[in-house]
Amino acid sequence: MIVIGIDPGIAICGYGVLYEKDRIEVIDYGVIETGSDLSKPKRLKKVYESYIELLEKYNPDAVAVEELFFNKNAKTAISVGEARGVALLAAALKGVEIYEYTPLQIKQMVVGYGWAKKNQIQEMTRVLLNLKELPKPDDAADALAVALCHLYCKNIEKIYGV
Amino acid sequence: MIVIGIDPGIAICGYGVLYEKDRIEVIDYGVIETGSDLSKPKRLKKVYESYIELLEKYNPDAVAVEELFFNKNAKTAISVGEARGVALLAAALKGVEIYEYTPLQIKQMVVGYGWAKKNQIQEMTRVLLNLKELPKPDDAADALAVALCHLYCKNIEKIYGV
Repeated sequence: MIVIGIDPGIAICGYGVLYEKDRIEVIDYGVIETGSDLSKPKRLKKVYESYIELLEKYNPDAVAVEELFFNKNAKTAISVGEARGVALLAAALKGVEIYEYTPLQIKQMVVGYGWAKKNQIQEMTRVLLNLKELPKPDDAADALAVALCHLYCKNIEKIYGV
Repeated sequence: MIVIGIDPGIAICGYGVLYEKDRIEVIDYGVIETGSDLSKPKRLKKVYESYIELLEKYNPDAVAVEELFFNKNAKTAISVGEARGVALLAAALKGVEIYEYTPLQIKQMVVGYGWAKKNQIQEMTRVLLNLKELPKPDDAADALAVALCHLYCKNIEKIYGV
């Protein structure tokens, strides 16, 4: 099973590609960046085209995205929403299943503790994926964490049938 | 010049198509609806495909969208953002210019008064477009108002060169 985790954004979007057969392997991770010299619609277009490229390159079984519940700044929330909309659309147009996970689910799955801090999630992601160094930047690490969360959730479903 | 005004949403998106040569004519207006029985990505896909159809059918010179600055509920803001992102993307992929107008700009342009109420904007939109009845539902009326705002702004630019 191949899963792509996505941390959507308009300036920087993280992605992480994991493959699981007997064990979980990191295939790729990184970020898509767009400059503020471009208009917002052009940035969304660039992000969308990069998602489509990733989906075509890795042909994943699932896409996992963090579900956002709260953002103090409504302007930021709208902007993050625009970037998420484009990510969800790209996967839907490619017919790939999309799973959304709350920050709490990601923390519980990856760290085993719902109140874990950001650096703890990143360090656990690094250890669990046998990476020598912390994936950088944070957006790529977050994308790997949500992809990992998806694989763990699927495994629990398989084992316990929940 | 043909302009499509869009009032983005995931459950219901309004659109209004205006044509201006010597005077402004209403070509079409209505709403795109998606049911909550569909998953969010599928709803975004349906909305996106309907936008693309509209853009291909009317081949507009511009798309006008209301710019949202504030929303008390961050969850709603993210959801509205997702729908906006898809609208902006559809226009960007079709190479159509996109213009965003604040609610204040729309009120000033359509009613001539920045604190106008919703029903005043709708009534003025009806009168200015020579429609016998108020465009229904509200989302279609809002979309016509933003399209009208765009044409007025462009005319002011033409006359005063601002």
